[in-house]
Amino acid sequence: MTSIQVGILGATGYTGVELVKLLHKHPHTSLSFVSSQTYAGSKMSEVFPELKSICDRVLLSPEDALKQDVQCVFSCLPHATSAGLCKPLVDKGIRVIDLSADFRIRDLAVYTQWYKTEHPCPELLPQAVFGLPEHYRSAIAKTNILANPGCYSSSIMLPLIPLLKEIGANIGTIIADSKSGVSGAGRGLKLGSLFVEAHENFSAYSIGRKHRHIAEIDQELSVAAGKKIAITFSPHLAPMNRGILSTIYLTGSTDGAMCLEILRKAYKNEPFIRVREPGNLPSVRDVAYTNFCDMSVTGGTEGQPVIIVSALDNLLKGASGQALQNMNIMFGFEETTALL
Amino acid sequence: MTSIQVGILGATGYTGVELVKLLHKHPHTSLSFVSSQTYAGSKMSEVFPELKSICDRVLLSPEDALKQDVQCVFSCLPHATSAGLCKPLVDKGIRVIDLSADFRIRDLAVYTQWYKTEHPCPELLPQAVFGLPEHYRSAIAKTNILANPGCYSSSIMLPLIPLLKEIGANIGTIIADSKSGVSGAGRGLKLGSLFVEAHENFSAYSIGRKHRHIAEIDQELSVAAGKKIAITFSPHLAPMNRGILSTIYLTGSTDGAMCLEILRKAYKNEPFIRVREPGNLPSVRDVAYTNFCDMSVTGGTEGQPVIIVSALDNLLKGASGQALQNMNIMFGFEETTALL
Amino acid sequence: MTSIQVGILGATGYTGVELVKLLHKHPHTSLSFVSSQTYAGSKMSEVFPELKSICDRVLLSPEDALKQDVQCVFSCLPHATSAGLCKPLVDKGIRVIDLSADFRIRDLAVYTQWYKTEHPCPELLPQAVFGLPEHYRSAIAKTNILANPGCYSSSIMLPLIPLLKEIGANIGTIIADSKSGVSGAGRGLKLGSLFVEAHENFSAYSIGRKHRHIAEIDQELSVAAGKKIAITFSPHLAPMNRGILSTIYLTGSTDGAMCLEILRKAYKNEPFIRVREPGNLPSVRDVAYTNFCDMSVTGGTEGQPVIIVSALDNLLKGASGQALQNMNIMFGFEETTALL
Amino acid sequence: MTSIQVGILGATGYTGVELVKLLHKHPHTSLSFVSSQTYAGSKMSEVFPELKSICDRVLLSPEDALKQDVQCVFSCLPHATSAGLCKPLVDKGIRVIDLSADFRIRDLAVYTQWYKTEHPCPELLPQAVFGLPEHYRSAIAKTNILANPGCYSSSIMLPLIPLLKEIGANIGTIIADSKSGVSGAGRGLKLGSLFVEAHENFSAYSIGRKHRHIAEIDQELSVAAGKKIAITFSPHLAPMNRGILSTIYLTGSTDGAMCLEILRKAYKNEPFIRVREPGNLPSVRDVAYTNFCDMSVTGGTEGQPVIIVSALDNLLKGASGQALQNMNIMFGFEETTALL
Repeated sequence: MTSIQVGILGATGYTGVELVKLLHKHPHTSLSFVSSQTYAGSKMSEVFPELKSICDRVLLSPEDALKQDVQCVFSCLPHATSAGLCKPLVDKGIRVIDLSADFRIRDLAVYTQWYKTEHPCPELLPQAVFGLPEHYRSAIAKTNILANPGCYSSSIMLPLIPLLKEIGANIGTIIADSKSGVSGAGRGLKLGSLFVEAHENFSAYSIGRKHRHIAEIDQELSVAAGKKIAITFSPHLAPMNRGILSTIYLTGSTDGAMCLEILRKAYKNEPFIRVREPGNLPSVRDVAYTNFCDMSVTGGTEGQPVIIVSALDNLLKGASGQALQNMNIMFGFEETTALL
Repeated sequence: MTSIQVGILGATGYTGVELVKLLHKHPHTSLSFVSSQTYAGSKMSEVFPELKSICDRVLLSPEDALKQDVQCVFSCLPHATSAGLCKPLVDKGIRVIDLSADFRIRDLAVYTQWYKTEHPCPELLPQAVFGLPEHYRSAIAKTNILANPGCYSSSIMLPLIPLLKEIGANIGTIIADSKSGVSGAGRGLKLGSLFVEAHENFSAYSIGRKHRHIAEIDQELSVAAGKKIAITFSPHLAPMNRGILSTIYLTGSTDGAMCLEILRKAYKNEPFIRVREPGNLPSVRDVAYTNFCDMSVTGGTEGQPVIIVSALDNLLKGASGQALQNMNIMFGFEETTALL
Repeated sequence: MTSIQVGILGATGYTGVELVKLLHKHPHTSLSFVSSQTYAGSKMSEVFPELKSICDRVLLSPEDALKQDVQCVFSCLPHATSAGLCKPLVDKGIRVIDLSADFRIRDLAVYTQWYKTEHPCPELLPQAVFGLPEHYRSAIAKTNILANPGCYSSSIMLPLIPLLKEIGANIGTIIADSKSGVSGAGRGLKLGSLFVEAHENFSAYSIGRKHRHIAEIDQELSVAAGKKIAITFSPHLAPMNRGILSTIYLTGSTDGAMCLEILRKAYKNEPFIRVREPGNLPSVRDVAYTNFCDMSVTGGTEGQPVIIVSALDNLLKGASGQALQNMNIMFGFEETTALL
Repeated sequence: MTSIQVGILGATGYTGVELVKLLHKHPHTSLSFVSSQTYAGSKMSEVFPELKSICDRVLLSPEDALKQDVQCVFSCLPHATSAGLCKPLVDKGIRVIDLSADFRIRDLAVYTQWYKTEHPCPELLPQAVFGLPEHYRSAIAKTNILANPGCYSSSIMLPLIPLLKEIGANIGTIIADSKSGVSGAGRGLKLGSLFVEAHENFSAYSIGRKHRHIAEIDQELSVAAGKKIAITFSPHLAPMNRGILSTIYLTGSTDGAMCLEILRKAYKNEPFIRVREPGNLPSVRDVAYTNFCDMSVTGGTEGQPVIIVSALDNLLKGASGQALQNMNIMFGFEETTALL
């Protein structure tokens, strides 16, 4: 099998580093460039000594990166910036996997409402595919512009989409209480990301439909349910580097055993979804440093809500691992390559 | 003001150590004994070098401890064991503060259902007082046998009792999603309490009305609401030593602003309850190593549930700090002594 | 006993917050002001919600702070800045406790060499006293300008000063391998202080006589030994909030048993120094949140070096606790007030 | 290339789990069995849910494991037990990689002195090879019984062996101050391994030539230096899951620049050794979850000792990763297979 040339825009955040490591293990890709506005001119391994002998490439400026001749580009740029750089790449026939939120939201007005800016590239939006492999695999295989889902979103949509497709009509309120490791906040210098502020701490933030991932969660859940869903989503910061655990409550006339059966059936052939046996709850430790999403179903009897617990690594199945899974699908590689 | 003589049964767990430290700062108490089945004969400071020069007393056996002449005893013994040792103390006229669950549950059948054992001392139960100072202060002042509430329970009852008293009729489902530090599991040698198992991990456990604190939470919330409450309670283990944060969802026709007003009014003169301004969410770091319980109210508009976030230190306001607060009330000391 | 009025300059770093908490427990002080360049105009409890109901004072600008009528000021300002603000205070007769390095170094040239700047206030230097209470107690009692020692320095000087006084002539190389929690780096926004960079990490830095605390360590050890000492000092960053553990190696013809005897004798009446029994090693957990410094002696037989292990809380005995201990001495309060 | 059949004795400790994960990625091995005394009869993935779909094999008893037809066995059993089970395997022609200490010590008296027991299998000792690939590669390729080095030992021997070979005569005292993550203590239920005891803590233990790894370190360093070495070794426990950082001090007439040059030359073609540039110090984060050992050289001027800092992942280059590297050498696979 021939190799493809790939590049990474905005490679010096946490998702970029993970992509570099994954691509290094991939037998059918060759990393042609890594780029960074801030660190252009330095070697990747100077910025991240952990990558010494893994990736000693010099970081390009975004401008130089755009001139490279590659077949696939991962964009780890921030939203609003990312779409603008994806456009010329797609125009050149390069297939782009965008880890930002720019192509996740189908409705421009919704994008503007949540991201407080005009969409930088609406003309590309119609051809973008939402990159949840377990649910959009065939569209992913053909797209030139892939919108890689958010980390919280993945942990919530993966268990809920099959349920809403089957029994969406019965479900009332949906509450997702999610707990994330600190790498989810990125590598920026923010007070709340300081060790002393986050360690031996646990805190809630953006409570009450304030977090941007709500836009894509509502969108995808509404499609699955065939009715308008407005999720209650409470993100929390947990004192760990990686991982998300979401505890999801479904009120209404749902039945735990039936929900479990639906998830088992939906995911029985999926290599990265592990539905747990009753009584065996997911935990972050079991999925950290992997591309797995684990999930369980409890409750749903005696008037109690059904409780779904899901767990994934926010940097892998919640970001770079899922992005590579999408790349594998897009280029016809074995879907689990470099991920199992 | 004269001093009282106090003792601690089962002093070598985490709550015992905290009590020793608190009593050391208390100007009106004198620690007469500490006891331990396992470590009897050793100095407290040999078992806990952190207590060197704070408490160098030799640990007594429980039998010897019962012979001591004191006015107040804290029992940090496990449930089912604790009540049996409290009885002879109360009979001698010693006032007992029991940190176990033995005297928290008023209904013997409920006790047996959750704790899987006959109650060891039902004759004392009628005179026991549930030690939530903010709600039972006058009864606490007079009791000889005080049942100190559980840690999770305190974090859930403190915000909910005033709300249920006022608007319990309007409230539908109550979901408490709680996150606790590892000290809540005690000092026993359990696989799940090992550093490597809990660090860089986050996990759910006892999901689906399985945790014993449900017994006391349902009991106290039902009293407050004047109707039968069956809470949905999901405990989680967070990778930190101390602290509990509970995110509580109230469905039904509730209003966030009204809930906030009720809490402010209920707690405006309470020294250890801090109701946060809107937009300012509690966090574990703000209450760790203190006897405060912080709480906030969000949501309750556009069909969304009201969301309460509460935080406390599980070893202080959730255990030993609250126990000392109760002792202060019982013996007529300033309620905040050694706690602020 | 009458109360004194005190103020804190630069109160919004980690040492300032600790001082506020300690002063809140002190029966003979009244906090007149807290100041901050960055947060002037905000309440202290808005910047640090943990201080709600503990300190709700509005932060003054440094300029306004200097006009306040107080008897004692703690300066938590950075070096080079601090001395300049201390001067007018001392001139007004206010007694100043400076937590910066500005008055620690007696030799101006050495100050300039390590701190890369001219000393901002050399005229005050002769009257400054190095605030290690166990060794300079009587001078501390009389001074108007106290130089509070560094955190690493305290952990190294406390065990070594008595030894060097007695057997300095016999000691060859001194190597201090120190491990600090992340709060030692302060509250500034630095990449290395981010949670994800420091958690699940352990790293060495400033290896090879590069760390500024060497200046004061060499100075004080040389005084004690009566000969020039040039310590080998290797600081490390450990993934914890607080605490320093120093492992100190003494080569030369030293004897472990004799060293232990010297330390026991030197510190037998000191309330905050705990010399451990042989075989019982200090740990950070035993001193965290206290003003203790624990120390032990091992080795010194069969040609092996004597190994001292010392531990303290970098924010208390290594900074604010020691500062308060110094204040207690300066103003004739019981030395352990608010600290035990 | 054909595959080999491999098995793991004592697979339910931390090193066993790591081996299972590594072997799962190895294209030329097939895992024939995993065994456990305690968990025999359960699936590996029931004991470690993280291994679901990675290794769902039923754990065999050690007795059944010995009957399996394989070419290679990894023993993760404890010392004293391990050697006894390795013997029949070697007799059957199976090549054994022993992760215990049983075959590391060439001198039976030294083994007995440190491990307080007779050697369980002295007849196999002469043919055992010490499995440090960078220094014993050709012997490793041929052996049937490989002694995989200890974790601390690897971090100390890897930088020191080349130096002692070249300039051992000049080196005086060698002090290794090592800091390890908690997984180094294994998965046993010990008080010191509890989360609450180790978290927010940092402690020294076995100070003063008490740790068993001294036996193998002294042995290998003495061989390299051509003279008897008695290292000063101080292990410490750091609050992290994985990783070791060793700070090593060399007194005597050594020169930092020369030491650096020796290490660069010794390791320039080694895929898993990364010698850092001056001023760029190793850290645990850079080697965690990899088989790398990073090292740096500082100091050695103005009478100061040369300071070596080395870092590795205690479960990979310090245990299972190195074991797999050894297997690759023994069976003629590319040495980096499944490790890069």
